[in-house]
Amino acid sequence: MGRGFVSLVGAGPGDPELLTLRAVARLREADLVLYDALAGREAQSLAPQARWFYVGKRARRRSIAQESIERLMIRAARRGERVVRLKCGDPFVLGRGGEEALALAKAGIPYEVVPGVTSAVAAPALAGIPVTHRGLSAGFAVVSGHAESAYEPLLGALPPGSATVVILMGLANRASIAALLLASGWPARTPAAVVLDASHDSAATWTGTLAGLGGCPLPDERPDAAGVLVIGEVVSLAAAIAAVPQERSSAPAA
Amino acid sequence: MGRGFVSLVGAGPGDPELLTLRAVARLREADLVLYDALAGREAQSLAPQARWFYVGKRARRRSIAQESIERLMIRAARRGERVVRLKCGDPFVLGRGGEEALALAKAGIPYEVVPGVTSAVAAPALAGIPVTHRGLSAGFAVVSGHAESAYEPLLGALPPGSATVVILMGLANRASIAALLLASGWPARTPAAVVLDASHDSAATWTGTLAGLGGCPLPDERPDAAGVLVIGEVVSLAAAIAAVPQERSSAPAA
Repeated sequence: MGRGFVSLVGAGPGDPELLTLRAVARLREADLVLYDALAGREAQSLAPQARWFYVGKRARRRSIAQESIERLMIRAARRGERVVRLKCGDPFVLGRGGEEALALAKAGIPYEVVPGVTSAVAAPALAGIPVTHRGLSAGFAVVSGHAESAYEPLLGALPPGSATVVILMGLANRASIAALLLASGWPARTPAAVVLDASHDSAATWTGTLAGLGGCPLPDERPDAAGVLVIGEVVSLAAAIAAVPQERSSAPAA
Repeated sequence: MGRGFVSLVGAGPGDPELLTLRAVARLREADLVLYDALAGREAQSLAPQARWFYVGKRARRRSIAQESIERLMIRAARRGERVVRLKCGDPFVLGRGGEEALALAKAGIPYEVVPGVTSAVAAPALAGIPVTHRGLSAGFAVVSGHAESAYEPLLGALPPGSATVVILMGLANRASIAALLLASGWPARTPAAVVLDASHDSAATWTGTLAGLGGCPLPDERPDAAGVLVIGEVVSLAAAIAAVPQERSSAPAA
């Protein structure tokens, strides 16, 4: 029986082609994969030998408690198993990966972090929006839009136009978020975008202004949809950048 | 002769295992690879058939002008070649990828953006620092430290402690950056880190406080070193998160 080991792996925004080589290598050797809603479904063919266990959230169902996930990882590693904790995007961007790392460290379980492609950057990019651009934005701020207590301290004080604002998990709160920025002095005409299901076949983008963000129409109202909000002048580049022919068909994964 | 195509590809922080599957697929089919200082050297074995052309900066040497890079890409694509523009980290994070995309769009060249693992998140993560962490930070700000005009608008106004601050290309300006944050009211004892050469064999991390950041000793003074500055309470987690045994030897790339 080999020594147990846990890999906290970033799965990227969803398309398996955006997995890293290291993520694929860890999946190939895994005995157990604990995966989230957006990660893993399509990646299961990369680790058919592993037991796949879903630990994410589904609409209107409670997710498995964080402590249970940590217990599962620790127990499997103590049995000598190779565990992959496959997390959406990057494990350390709003994914509670730090808590999982601390729990493993406290339990004395050897582990590693395998960084992934974060949706905070990739979702805008795939919609033709560079989060930074010479002359428009030298930086960007990423914040959770899940609760006002999370985004208010940063967004309520960020000087208008000082950075591109990227909000994850903020789809349901987009009206409150837009109102907060407007109240903080951001111009109503500031370009804004909502990028849905980036890298998936169902990908869609709304672009408009901060004034329209709160009421922007979405295909259907799903509070758990993978939506990324982007606010800032860089959004105005999307029309030019995304307008070119994307004729290259997707090559098969290695 | 096939139709020319350009892929703007993120290479990640440097370790080829952090390339995405799509990046590898594009390299395998490339006729020409234009690469930066940090990207590509070790990745060349993935595309031995391609011509590799270095277009990045070296210490004390001028880099190739941005316009020349764009001209090279466009000319090769017009000859029907498959071009990979391999960029450090993610192509749209402080890498002038937006400018390259616009130039290609203007020239009518079909192209795509392949997001990569950004050093802004991966460098802290590999040093045991989660850029967000429940109870400590619900967001992070990424900014270029290359010039005061780039970082001052954001860092001079960001409320102390409202987000983790990540600064790329700011190694040489770390004293000015620390002074700016201190003058803006950030507590002198705020944890701070400098992560050098993340994901490379030469990786090293300094951790201390904002008060010590300006004068922190580095192995040698290289203004072009790949250094990421991280400032915020999350840095205090590094000791616990990075302290676990990392016994897993790195698996070979797929």
